[in-house]
Amino acid sequence: MSDTVVVGLDVGGTSTRAVALTLAGERLGDGRGGGGNPTSHGAERAAGELLTALRGALSGVDPTRVRAGTIGLAGAGRLLADPAGKAAFDRAWRDAGLRCPCSVHGDALVAYASGTASPDGTVLIAGTGAIAAQVHDLRLDRVADGHGWVLGDAGSGFWLGREAVRRLLAGLDGGRTAGPLATQVLTELVGSARVAAHPRDTVDAVVQAVTRRPPVELARLAPLVVAAALAGDPVATGLLDEAAGQLAESAGRIRPPGAVDPVVLGGGLLTGDTPLATAVRAELGRRWPDAPLRTAGDGAAAAAWLAARDLPEVTDPTALHPLLVPPTT
Amino acid sequence: MSDTVVVGLDVGGTSTRAVALTLAGERLGDGRGGGGNPTSHGAERAAGELLTALRGALSGVDPTRVRAGTIGLAGAGRLLADPAGKAAFDRAWRDAGLRCPCSVHGDALVAYASGTASPDGTVLIAGTGAIAAQVHDLRLDRVADGHGWVLGDAGSGFWLGREAVRRLLAGLDGGRTAGPLATQVLTELVGSARVAAHPRDTVDAVVQAVTRRPPVELARLAPLVVAAALAGDPVATGLLDEAAGQLAESAGRIRPPGAVDPVVLGGGLLTGDTPLATAVRAELGRRWPDAPLRTAGDGAAAAAWLAARDLPEVTDPTALHPLLVPPTT
Repeated sequence: MSDTVVVGLDVGGTSTRAVALTLAGERLGDGRGGGGNPTSHGAERAAGELLTALRGALSGVDPTRVRAGTIGLAGAGRLLADPAGKAAFDRAWRDAGLRCPCSVHGDALVAYASGTASPDGTVLIAGTGAIAAQVHDLRLDRVADGHGWVLGDAGSGFWLGREAVRRLLAGLDGGRTAGPLATQVLTELVGSARVAAHPRDTVDAVVQAVTRRPPVELARLAPLVVAAALAGDPVATGLLDEAAGQLAESAGRIRPPGAVDPVVLGGGLLTGDTPLATAVRAELGRRWPDAPLRTAGDGAAAAAWLAARDLPEVTDPTALHPLLVPPTT
Repeated sequence: MSDTVVVGLDVGGTSTRAVALTLAGERLGDGRGGGGNPTSHGAERAAGELLTALRGALSGVDPTRVRAGTIGLAGAGRLLADPAGKAAFDRAWRDAGLRCPCSVHGDALVAYASGTASPDGTVLIAGTGAIAAQVHDLRLDRVADGHGWVLGDAGSGFWLGREAVRRLLAGLDGGRTAGPLATQVLTELVGSARVAAHPRDTVDAVVQAVTRRPPVELARLAPLVVAAALAGDPVATGLLDEAAGQLAESAGRIRPPGAVDPVVLGGGLLTGDTPLATAVRAELGRRWPDAPLRTAGDGAAAAAWLAARDLPEVTDPTALHPLLVPPTT
């Protein structure tokens, strides 16, 4: 059993991570590649990054020892439905010397499994976008939001950025003095916190600065909201509370009242000790007081654990989880 | 004085209207052209539509009798700042045989003047977009919203359409049976009200149907909200109430509490006997109980009245208003 190796990959929009682990939890290798999302980068390039990350994780590892592997990526369903994309990923897998089967799961399931071994629960993710999903028997079941920035992603980084600009514009319309968050958003967008003699000129400059870029880039303003909230700006704190309410509402569309299985928080805005995570924990605690709240952690390790679960020698997947997946809070 | 003629033009995105009036209120001619917004159609084409409308209004009128003219159009400021655009409009004016001066005003001011002769007041417009403006001495003063669909236009046709789809998606996420509005929006977007065995497939189809087109086209769903509200759907009624609250909030950014000067309602969603107009009137009545509420009417006639005001023989512009501009409710 100690000879058996499992491989996990966490394929994200900006980086790809791979890990090779023994079933005893020994970390044999880590690998990294660039962004590998086949939807945004194209299947060939994504498969190339996958291969780079895999080779990093497998340097010094006999690939015939690898008995199972899992890839977690956003849009997994689209990849599996696209024969050319699937072929490119299969080729990268073989080019890395791997002969074992490889399963593909959505990034939401992998984020969930990075925070808990419980077969049933909820995962709530807020990064640039936002999505909630029920997990049943370690498969994604019902999903809420993830509708994209035009129609949804309520409480996401995009949403926070857009609302921060909307509050700035409302203040300029009303002739109010800009608070700390508005000042920082104004400076970020137009290079100065000075309001023109005709405030409508500043309004127009802000609108133009936003509409010059793809709207989804409003998400890059989210860290300003987080920072302003940490500095005590009530406008920023109010936005985070509102975002937390929206995220909890999305989860509430699919998670039954009174559920006691775990909720895993994932995505850049909810992992780590962020004020949005604090607000979301408070909101979830009100709605589901008896549910354990967990944070997503090492996605590549979680993918490796998901792969290991199906091996005949793994009789207790739950007991294996803490060996393979570093614990989170 | 009865020989004096004034000309007014209302240049919109889908049509251009022109009118020639005597100061006694005699309507000498009407003209129509296609959409003439120089920002969306290009200055040359816009000027061509202007000329078509002008010629219609002036057929049978000696152009030397025309002593003043006004053009109302969206983005008037942009036209005046663009020498080539301004030259194209001046050329059309001369090609119509006109030698008198021509002033250009924003469409919001013209909408305002089509509902009242009061020099001071507020205009609140909701069509595809939404904007509120203070009018001072019959010039546009402070403005609220009009920020475009990415950041604003709260309570507009775009906003109503987007919120209608968001409610539909939330219902699909939550596995709830679709109400009348959701059924109609679903049918409009994907051609059928049937929800797939995996409701997420229907969610994806809705999101794709929306994101295939420019987002602003969500405004075309607004009439479904209005119709569903008229048929008694509480979801639609709730959306209209929310839109009315947003529109009143925008007006409140620039209109002082307790103001008693008139508010003119304009734009396709607020002119005529629409349920949104009813909701907005109720909301404005709560905020400004002593203010007269008016509806925008004939923009071309209002433009002609704005032109006439500056003539030396017009000593009482207010008394002239009912002669030139057909009354509205």
